[in-house]
Amino acid sequence: MQRIYFDNNATTMVDPLVRRAMEPFFCERYGNPNSLHQFGTEVHPDLRAAMDRLYAGINAADGDDILLNGCATEGNNTVLKAVWFDLIRHGSKDHVITTSVEHPCVGNTARFLQGLGAKVTFLPVNRDARVEADAVRDAITQRTALVSVMWANNETGIVFPVREIAEVCRESGVLFHTDAVQAIGKVKVDVQEVPVDFLTFSAHKFHGPKGVGGLFVRKGLKLSPLLHGGEQMAGKRAGTINVAGIVGMGLAMELAAQNLAFEGSEVRRLRDRLEDALLKIPDVMAIGRREMRVPNTSFLSVRGVEGEALLWDLNRHGIAASTGSACASESLEASPIISAIGAGPELSHTGVRLSLSRFTTQDEVDAVVRVFSGAVERLRSISSAY
Amino acid sequence: MQRIYFDNNATTMVDPLVRRAMEPFFCERYGNPNSLHQFGTEVHPDLRAAMDRLYAGINAADGDDILLNGCATEGNNTVLKAVWFDLIRHGSKDHVITTSVEHPCVGNTARFLQGLGAKVTFLPVNRDARVEADAVRDAITQRTALVSVMWANNETGIVFPVREIAEVCRESGVLFHTDAVQAIGKVKVDVQEVPVDFLTFSAHKFHGPKGVGGLFVRKGLKLSPLLHGGEQMAGKRAGTINVAGIVGMGLAMELAAQNLAFEGSEVRRLRDRLEDALLKIPDVMAIGRREMRVPNTSFLSVRGVEGEALLWDLNRHGIAASTGSACASESLEASPIISAIGAGPELSHTGVRLSLSRFTTQDEVDAVVRVFSGAVERLRSISSAY
Repeated sequence: MQRIYFDNNATTMVDPLVRRAMEPFFCERYGNPNSLHQFGTEVHPDLRAAMDRLYAGINAADGDDILLNGCATEGNNTVLKAVWFDLIRHGSKDHVITTSVEHPCVGNTARFLQGLGAKVTFLPVNRDARVEADAVRDAITQRTALVSVMWANNETGIVFPVREIAEVCRESGVLFHTDAVQAIGKVKVDVQEVPVDFLTFSAHKFHGPKGVGGLFVRKGLKLSPLLHGGEQMAGKRAGTINVAGIVGMGLAMELAAQNLAFEGSEVRRLRDRLEDALLKIPDVMAIGRREMRVPNTSFLSVRGVEGEALLWDLNRHGIAASTGSACASESLEASPIISAIGAGPELSHTGVRLSLSRFTTQDEVDAVVRVFSGAVERLRSISSAY
Repeated sequence: MQRIYFDNNATTMVDPLVRRAMEPFFCERYGNPNSLHQFGTEVHPDLRAAMDRLYAGINAADGDDILLNGCATEGNNTVLKAVWFDLIRHGSKDHVITTSVEHPCVGNTARFLQGLGAKVTFLPVNRDARVEADAVRDAITQRTALVSVMWANNETGIVFPVREIAEVCRESGVLFHTDAVQAIGKVKVDVQEVPVDFLTFSAHKFHGPKGVGGLFVRKGLKLSPLLHGGEQMAGKRAGTINVAGIVGMGLAMELAAQNLAFEGSEVRRLRDRLEDALLKIPDVMAIGRREMRVPNTSFLSVRGVEGEALLWDLNRHGIAASTGSACASESLEASPIISAIGAGPELSHTGVRLSLSRFTTQDEVDAVVRVFSGAVERLRSISSAY
């Protein structure tokens, strides 16, 4: 049975080089880096190298922080909750701006802050499935403490205008956070070019291991920790340092940067080849303009076909795709994106996301086109709606 | 150069069997378990097997929860902060009881709750370096929401009377949480015998990987999540499931249970052999009665010798030991335990912890005895205080 993985926005294969780099840290160099003896200190050079790779990967500067944590969910929770504890609880600000299409770990944390008394604005996307900087500017008030807008959307792959939004926030004296989980390794993420204050990422989205992530904090800024405890990371994030995971994430970040040109050319070429072929099927529509998307993602609406039914057909042929976020894959709600771009309700359950990686081959693309086309034909033939 | 690791209370070597069990989940079976397709679902049997091993390891019942997370620091933060959000913030209770010798991830979280308005009692240990159930009973008031007392102390290895404390809490209608990080794999941890409400553990303390832990929640109880986000674990803990880590933790838990008798006999024999030999050195004292300790730990006070100086001598010979918690190893404060047991201030910096594991050999014990004895002699010969 063939196994074709087109769900790289949900998670990715660990790069074999990353796996190999992690191996010595399980049974040989297993010390706790906070220990004073050689078992602890001998891993310091590896951790420093990993940190250097993370700093280089997003072009962070000396004095900036990159807090190492368990996942982007933890990073995003840290930022939003720290803003509540540090700015909103006792201050004159009580307003957070985010979007209606954030990952649930931003959206649901924002709703949690609402329960604590914060005011939250959820900006909708426009017909391009984007949130524009002007909409952010219009929403900012004297009471706005934080703007949180993702760098690239997980469902559509649409890249948001984070540079313009960051500049609007700077001008207004408002903190800006971006969830860059879907951007790292797909487009250039440079915290000098884009003046974000906080940025989160997760290793398993760029061919690193699951269970480890990072949170960039601009020099001069401080966040109350989400996890209190030991003195790790100068008290900014407690918990024993996950050495193997961090070494893996560091190398994964370096490889992501090295492969960025390949992603923009070859992965894009394969994605376009895939999408061009699938768009030849009648009544198939791509969500979001291609040039506004990360190179690996194609989110398609197939009129008359339920996305989930199509997934099952693909899955029977060993092809992994998604109707959207894996973190909400048991939800039956309509895609907020498909509604937002102005498509009718008859299309709201027709979305299928195909997300490639640098390990995707042209043979796989062509196999997916064949199976996808056959599945659409079959499902439409038994559909009462088409 | 020899490498002898006697710091297993700080972290442990991953068992080679655990490492092998984790391997397929990096580059082959790397799907996100929340995905609906085969890459996601094919790991479900492995996750279920890991959960079964965790449930069996602590004798949890159907209906109990074990939330999978990043570490015990996260688990302990989850319990204490949820109690604040769920019980203290809007309720008539505002009091938390813990001890003065908890790990910083309990102690500092409790201090954070104080900042939010909670009242916290930090019970001191007695001359046996224990907190007795009577002290807990005396401290409980009508306003007490939670008692948090560790199962076994990280520095001394002293086992606390958690069963009696749990029963006191039950009688008083107070929730009871225990940090069992230093107990799993060393003594029997059975949540049926000991009626705890919440219990935390961390894989890397029992020969599992770093970066993954668990939080037991008794049937019928609910904690507000620390991490908001996706629907993982029914909304109780968001974040992509760390499949490799959880598979590793599950097997590590099973191996810990299987090796419990060995720990109580052979590891204990080696620890006692070590301690008997070191206690022959004049003016060396073991902290805490041996029969009250987990089998692997020896915390010694060496009069006239600074613990840290002794560590460096041991380290020069490739031997890893500790002056106490690795999470506070850069702190210069006196050991609270040594003060608590009534030793004079001249002993407060003389503590050295030696912690063994099932991988420790008798040859290693004998080598440590030789080096330790020589180091004490050398350090005392240059000490003005001895």
